[in-house]
Amino acid sequence: MKEIITKYPHLLHGGDYNPEQWIDCPQVLEEDIRLMKEAHVNCVSLGIFSWAKLEPEEGEFHFGWLRRIIDRLFENGIYTILATPTGAMPHWMTAKYEEVRQMGPDGVRNLPGRRHNFCYTSPVMRKKMKKINHELSRHLGNHPGVILWHISNEYGGNGSDASCHCPHCQQAFREWLKEKYKTLDNLNHAWWTTFWSHTYTDWSQIHSPVPNGENGLHGLNLDWKRFVSHQIQDFCKEEIHAVLKYSVLPVTINMMEFFKPLDYFKFAPQLDIISWDSYPEWHSKKDEVDIAVRAAACHTLMRSLKKAPFLLMESTPSIVNWKPVNTQKRPGLHELSSLQAVACGSNSVQYFQWRKSRGSSEKFHGAVVDHRNGSNTRVFREVSALGQRMEQISDAVYPTCNRPEAAIVFDWENWWALEDIQGPRRDMAYLDTVLAHFKPFWEMGIDVDFVDEDSDLSGYRLVTAPLNYLYKKGYAAKVKAYVEAGGCYVSTYFSGVVDETDLCILDRHPLEEVLGICTEEMDAANEYHPNSIYFGGKSYQTGCLREVSHVVPGSGTEVLASYEADYYAGLPALTCKRYGNGKAYYLACETEADFLRAFYAQLAGENNVDGAFTGKLPYGVTASRREGERNLWFLQNFNASEAEAELPDTYTRVADGARVEGKVVLKPYECLILAEKQADGL
Amino acid sequence: MKEIITKYPHLLHGGDYNPEQWIDCPQVLEEDIRLMKEAHVNCVSLGIFSWAKLEPEEGEFHFGWLRRIIDRLFENGIYTILATPTGAMPHWMTAKYEEVRQMGPDGVRNLPGRRHNFCYTSPVMRKKMKKINHELSRHLGNHPGVILWHISNEYGGNGSDASCHCPHCQQAFREWLKEKYKTLDNLNHAWWTTFWSHTYTDWSQIHSPVPNGENGLHGLNLDWKRFVSHQIQDFCKEEIHAVLKYSVLPVTINMMEFFKPLDYFKFAPQLDIISWDSYPEWHSKKDEVDIAVRAAACHTLMRSLKKAPFLLMESTPSIVNWKPVNTQKRPGLHELSSLQAVACGSNSVQYFQWRKSRGSSEKFHGAVVDHRNGSNTRVFREVSALGQRMEQISDAVYPTCNRPEAAIVFDWENWWALEDIQGPRRDMAYLDTVLAHFKPFWEMGIDVDFVDEDSDLSGYRLVTAPLNYLYKKGYAAKVKAYVEAGGCYVSTYFSGVVDETDLCILDRHPLEEVLGICTEEMDAANEYHPNSIYFGGKSYQTGCLREVSHVVPGSGTEVLASYEADYYAGLPALTCKRYGNGKAYYLACETEADFLRAFYAQLAGENNVDGAFTGKLPYGVTASRREGERNLWFLQNFNASEAEAELPDTYTRVADGARVEGKVVLKPYECLILAEKQADGL
Amino acid sequence: MKEIITKYPHLLHGGDYNPEQWIDCPQVLEEDIRLMKEAHVNCVSLGIFSWAKLEPEEGEFHFGWLRRIIDRLFENGIYTILATPTGAMPHWMTAKYEEVRQMGPDGVRNLPGRRHNFCYTSPVMRKKMKKINHELSRHLGNHPGVILWHISNEYGGNGSDASCHCPHCQQAFREWLKEKYKTLDNLNHAWWTTFWSHTYTDWSQIHSPVPNGENGLHGLNLDWKRFVSHQIQDFCKEEIHAVLKYSVLPVTINMMEFFKPLDYFKFAPQLDIISWDSYPEWHSKKDEVDIAVRAAACHTLMRSLKKAPFLLMESTPSIVNWKPVNTQKRPGLHELSSLQAVACGSNSVQYFQWRKSRGSSEKFHGAVVDHRNGSNTRVFREVSALGQRMEQISDAVYPTCNRPEAAIVFDWENWWALEDIQGPRRDMAYLDTVLAHFKPFWEMGIDVDFVDEDSDLSGYRLVTAPLNYLYKKGYAAKVKAYVEAGGCYVSTYFSGVVDETDLCILDRHPLEEVLGICTEEMDAANEYHPNSIYFGGKSYQTGCLREVSHVVPGSGTEVLASYEADYYAGLPALTCKRYGNGKAYYLACETEADFLRAFYAQLAGENNVDGAFTGKLPYGVTASRREGERNLWFLQNFNASEAEAELPDTYTRVADGARVEGKVVLKPYECLILAEKQADGL
Repeated sequence: MKEIITKYPHLLHGGDYNPEQWIDCPQVLEEDIRLMKEAHVNCVSLGIFSWAKLEPEEGEFHFGWLRRIIDRLFENGIYTILATPTGAMPHWMTAKYEEVRQMGPDGVRNLPGRRHNFCYTSPVMRKKMKKINHELSRHLGNHPGVILWHISNEYGGNGSDASCHCPHCQQAFREWLKEKYKTLDNLNHAWWTTFWSHTYTDWSQIHSPVPNGENGLHGLNLDWKRFVSHQIQDFCKEEIHAVLKYSVLPVTINMMEFFKPLDYFKFAPQLDIISWDSYPEWHSKKDEVDIAVRAAACHTLMRSLKKAPFLLMESTPSIVNWKPVNTQKRPGLHELSSLQAVACGSNSVQYFQWRKSRGSSEKFHGAVVDHRNGSNTRVFREVSALGQRMEQISDAVYPTCNRPEAAIVFDWENWWALEDIQGPRRDMAYLDTVLAHFKPFWEMGIDVDFVDEDSDLSGYRLVTAPLNYLYKKGYAAKVKAYVEAGGCYVSTYFSGVVDETDLCILDRHPLEEVLGICTEEMDAANEYHPNSIYFGGKSYQTGCLREVSHVVPGSGTEVLASYEADYYAGLPALTCKRYGNGKAYYLACETEADFLRAFYAQLAGENNVDGAFTGKLPYGVTASRREGERNLWFLQNFNASEAEAELPDTYTRVADGARVEGKVVLKPYECLILAEKQADGL
Repeated sequence: MKEIITKYPHLLHGGDYNPEQWIDCPQVLEEDIRLMKEAHVNCVSLGIFSWAKLEPEEGEFHFGWLRRIIDRLFENGIYTILATPTGAMPHWMTAKYEEVRQMGPDGVRNLPGRRHNFCYTSPVMRKKMKKINHELSRHLGNHPGVILWHISNEYGGNGSDASCHCPHCQQAFREWLKEKYKTLDNLNHAWWTTFWSHTYTDWSQIHSPVPNGENGLHGLNLDWKRFVSHQIQDFCKEEIHAVLKYSVLPVTINMMEFFKPLDYFKFAPQLDIISWDSYPEWHSKKDEVDIAVRAAACHTLMRSLKKAPFLLMESTPSIVNWKPVNTQKRPGLHELSSLQAVACGSNSVQYFQWRKSRGSSEKFHGAVVDHRNGSNTRVFREVSALGQRMEQISDAVYPTCNRPEAAIVFDWENWWALEDIQGPRRDMAYLDTVLAHFKPFWEMGIDVDFVDEDSDLSGYRLVTAPLNYLYKKGYAAKVKAYVEAGGCYVSTYFSGVVDETDLCILDRHPLEEVLGICTEEMDAANEYHPNSIYFGGKSYQTGCLREVSHVVPGSGTEVLASYEADYYAGLPALTCKRYGNGKAYYLACETEADFLRAFYAQLAGENNVDGAFTGKLPYGVTASRREGERNLWFLQNFNASEAEAELPDTYTRVADGARVEGKVVLKPYECLILAEKQADGL
Repeated sequence: MKEIITKYPHLLHGGDYNPEQWIDCPQVLEEDIRLMKEAHVNCVSLGIFSWAKLEPEEGEFHFGWLRRIIDRLFENGIYTILATPTGAMPHWMTAKYEEVRQMGPDGVRNLPGRRHNFCYTSPVMRKKMKKINHELSRHLGNHPGVILWHISNEYGGNGSDASCHCPHCQQAFREWLKEKYKTLDNLNHAWWTTFWSHTYTDWSQIHSPVPNGENGLHGLNLDWKRFVSHQIQDFCKEEIHAVLKYSVLPVTINMMEFFKPLDYFKFAPQLDIISWDSYPEWHSKKDEVDIAVRAAACHTLMRSLKKAPFLLMESTPSIVNWKPVNTQKRPGLHELSSLQAVACGSNSVQYFQWRKSRGSSEKFHGAVVDHRNGSNTRVFREVSALGQRMEQISDAVYPTCNRPEAAIVFDWENWWALEDIQGPRRDMAYLDTVLAHFKPFWEMGIDVDFVDEDSDLSGYRLVTAPLNYLYKKGYAAKVKAYVEAGGCYVSTYFSGVVDETDLCILDRHPLEEVLGICTEEMDAANEYHPNSIYFGGKSYQTGCLREVSHVVPGSGTEVLASYEADYYAGLPALTCKRYGNGKAYYLACETEADFLRAFYAQLAGENNVDGAFTGKLPYGVTASRREGERNLWFLQNFNASEAEAELPDTYTRVADGARVEGKVVLKPYECLILAEKQADGL
């Protein structure tokens, strides 16, 4: 595996640190260093919101205070991830240059304040960003204690959909469209503007979709979302270029799980390492399983973006402050949720935040150090214990990574298009559907990857593509080749409906030959029209969305499940067609979770992707495998009670080298890390 | 009956057709014609959203493409309803002339896009509309295949309340008010502006009601709603005038059920035939009865507007795409729902849309022809079968119309005033109340008319006026004369409260002499204060609204039901007073449906309006009668299961001339059409 | 007690009167006077919305019509409370001077209309107000029938949060901040602006908190709320100054219960007597108890503001018109709810409104005189009977007032800060919490006072301070002194968290020495994490908010209750520490009502604040005591049924002088007024 963070190739433990808030209290910095060492912290993120301190007036730069802090940390063995400060703009800039502030869809420009809300098109903003980033790079980009660039902060997190509708953005959007479509005729066809007489006859007539203007032209909506993601990516590219002027450090941005406005698959290539900020809603439901599944999916996405270890850049050691009710993590859950990230491929556990601020909106957000009580808190003790454990496992864990053989297609453009439709149901719930298909793998202890439609499928034994509404150019051909070569592919209802400009694909499903199925109509039914399908000797309830489909005559398609009621009783609900050396499955309807569990268990077995830890994972327990010279298994118990798993082999407990086999009892919220036997049986 | 559509006096079957979307695919037009004939389509609507194709740049007109399509259709026996294209404006116009775009109540002008949102006051818009309509009339208004003008599309359907608040509209509103009130003193008195010190001292101070300005002056609110409806009606009048410049065809507009912003009773006289777009929410409830009742009420309203047959201008053969869940019509329901329209007086079944568009917001709205599978779909087959049946019954049905003897008062101005009040309850639910009073008639198989307060009542045996809050000038006198002459009149709680400027009528109820009742207070009670009334040997639950009233001493008013609980126990809840040759009923409270059923059954019997088909209509089955030389009965079974009705006489089944009598079993969703015996017993 | 309304020292009965609406109907005025006398009305409020009649055009004044009405009333023994007319602005003014209209947080200025929405900073508005107030004072300020100034109407009741965001207000806010903070450095520190890089470098950068600008800087938010309250108070001060130019009458404003935008404790000193408008939601729940408790709390607040009798300035004799459902008061409840006000210290029962208006938004709001039926209504008869009773009790009641020995801290600045936080729970529910702590006292028949953090505590035996998040400067020292001197003080979870600029207080709880407790973390738990505490031999459920705390070692703090479950089982939930001559209690969590009942019963007994009427008050019955030469007890039965109370002593019934002792049966909704024996046993 290529070493990214060469200066300190270890598991990182630490978090966001804002010493500029305590610049008048030098004893706080010293106390922080003392406490960091007590907490086994080896890395902090600095400068995320420091613009006003680094450049207090236009063109007047102060880096000394920051250098002194980095020095002092480094002297104490604590490394720095250095941020560019564009996450929040200083008042002198927003006051002087109106254009740096975003304009809402209502045409009203923001007043100064808040964060993540600069106009990413504004020439002034780009100029000011380059200047501060150059200076930062020049002054601190080669400091021995700095190991990584943290570019801006949570790009696009402006509280709505990330977009800016100012005149600069409108013009850039038109240029982007011209580049893409060349002629208005092409654009008018792609957007099907003859509908409702909305033919554009001049480029200047095009405007971003807004509530009091055009907003039902789905081609426009989709291209606008593409443009916004592209434009922020372009800004990010310029930031990276700027910090690399005087520095050769690797770069990352801190992402935000399945963040709809930004196509992270497109961002990944320009980053050296992926990182993200994880805030699962622990304790908000009856038990932690659904929360854990979602968290695992997020970690999995981050690892999938570069098929490499990532960093957990932010997490809370206790609570957040933005949920309706912010419940403290019960003892043990902090360690488990942190090691869950590592189990899924993270090489760090970083917190937001090291020390709680005294004022403003995040003063009650959880932190390692509270306003009172110093290190004498449960939270501090749990953080410290985890830090110690991270140190113990670092050598074993660091060189490994998960290498799944199954993949789930998750595609941002499909997401944008699908959830914008006026179709069978208002809420098409793409992400929920994907998570429903992810969960059975989690339950079986099978790691998967997320891929998008542009990804290479060839390395996987199994690929499933739920609600794959929009087919990008070349996607159908790729799937065809994949199956032909022996792959196993699962398609569902409402797939292959539109092409990449959101125009309906006419006449035949693009994969009809592969799937052997032909769909007649989509029924979206409510509670008064229950139905079920019969599969493997059992009935399963259907959900709301149900396609009425027919096997293509003579195709040899096998019907594995059929509807049991209503006017489409007897028609196929699940089919399988052998195609080339592979197989293609088609699922015609939403179903209850039990069906997906049974179906994927069968597929996993048949396709040998069940690198599963054991068939005996009890409820709420999962397993992940990081592969390397010595493979590691992370057994995670998300129950608040003990749970017994059965081991299929003999393992070595990483913590103490003890031999473990047979039945093993996991304590509440325990994460047990086991090493596989090596080839020589050791 | 006067023949309106003289060129083709038959039941119409077809729908909206948008060939301009496929202008580059000539084979699609030919395929469409082939499929239309297969589907027994004889009429399509063209040009509804064609402005951008008819006038692609200002002043440059292209009618050739449209003439060629009309020609080709006509050669194949398919007639055209020709629309004016004002439903959506082309981009060149909205870009060049800002004033054609509406301004919201927030003072923000729309950006270009969407539809039904032109400013109906704008001089530019009126000029452009006249020009295109003149050209359309000149080029195509005499085509032998064109049978009817379809003026604009769904006037007022701008997604909110139809209104425009631009300066042109403000000025027109002030002129309209000057015309109405002559002096500010008159206006100040009518609007009672001394309240909260809001006396207008200059006409220019008057502004439409808006959230950040005046909005609690109910007289202003009411006049604004009148003005908006009037102004759109005036625009419509100019459109009609324009198309009739070179053409003598009849005109219609496609209405939208009980559409609150437009007083359709006032529109009716300027139209030759009424048409409307019907989208009932089938399958959204436990069964179809309430949906069917509401749909029947809508059809009834449309027939009542001119007391003549109307056209069903739009309906979906399958689903719409704007409900939270869009469920497919179960087999058979499409035929039933279509024939329900005919049963209530429609001379057509037209669809939106013939062929699904490939892109934009309605690409998943139901259509006869889908993106795939051509005519090989259930939907197509059901449409085709219905078309065939329409052909078979056309001769019998076309010359007939329903002729009810009972009427329900439904008045737009009352609606506007009532639901704007700050009174006993926030939601005064006028339409729901009217439908609750309509339902018993539907259940009894009795056709009724809707009338408004301006209508002539003299032809009816029974008139009921639920929640008749606002009394227009002369209304009380008309009712008095009606009852005196022998009519039966039902009034309810919260009637006769205000005059037509929304000022409370002081001292006495305007019909006190007729009703013999005097009201003291209105109690709006919640779940913690149940009550009931005793009527005809049975107790019925009351609803929320309950007036505390007293019989006028010495009036001879008879108490038919009294409250059973609370501090008004024993006081009258239902009374009857003989007045002249008639009778006047007063219902003091909301009640459960069972009471209305019992009450109206008694009234129908006593007043001989029970042209009911039979006393044995089972649940979910109704009957309607279209009268003519030979009266026709439409028995409609809205159950998903069989239902048995009992016939009071012998009939001829229109489908095959078979004789039918006694018990008859209706299949699920069946509509049975029976002809009465003629005078000679045949 | 100091006599405030010297011209007519009696209980007042009457209400808002708007004869300007009927100026064209002189017979209405005469009829009104006749009916007022019949209803035992002795006082009306005039001129509240009369600006347009008093100054119909700029600078043109008409006082004659109003003087004639005051004359005519006075001749008939009816006194006048005279209002300044600033509650609603005339159209000539809003049309000519844009600046008098408020600007919303969206930067959009109001259009003319509505009420209570003038810009309180606008120099033009202040000038116009002074002019009309001077004229009013000069013309009518010495009329013998006028007894009190009613300054404006319901200040701040603009339908949102009272604030105006116009440029004048922005500038005034900046001046107010400069006065307060002197330097930007001070302000930046107080608001902790280094967070998110929001350091202000120029005063002009400061803007009020708005949705599309800065809104998460809690110090800014808090200062803005202080400024808005201050600025309206300043406007009020100028109004008072203006009316007193030619007049020496006392002044009041009509307040609105716990009205969040205005810190009424700060308004009180500039008023001679407090008055308020009371609209409890009677009949909206299963029974009236919670409504009655809240109403009692409101009355209590008003009395507490000056520790003196207040006036009930508005109330409805029947219904309001702004609730979702407006239920009529059941017979008897009007008398009870009116006498409840008197029981809590009111010297009046005034109505909104005497006569219903004919038009506009309040035409269906309850009134003494309806649109129809004159005095022949239940409402009129109940009002009249109450008026008669008020006359009978006036001499006994007027010279008395409640004098509680327990106090609850309710502080507006704490309210603003607490409910703006992003903390453990989104809805911190300050008022609900305070009411939960008030209710046990109501149930025990113990009057309490509300005090704020600036109030003197020394007169009370018991002070409880629920959710006292923000500690104003000097508050902790005051509490310490209070307890040291022998007071009993109750503190709860989430107290003493921030200082008065909303900065977290570091290191220790400011009352740690007094409370003997140290808090580690706040757990906000949902339904899936129930807990309970054990107190006095019984388990009580906890609510959502629960602090994890520890007794300070060696502090001698006694643990009275502990948690029973979860990871903090066994830790203290209620503690008591003796400090100096007093005791300090600390309650660590929200609890069910039963705990508060048990806890405060114990405290009341121990601290001799239980001037309770009896230990035998049944459910729904309470007692209040007005003290004077002869103490009066008001026994109030809020049940719709009879209830039996047990008297601890012998009393004289005020109504008829009858001797009452032992068990006494209260009729439904009865209020029984009893006089204590005097010192000499009479």
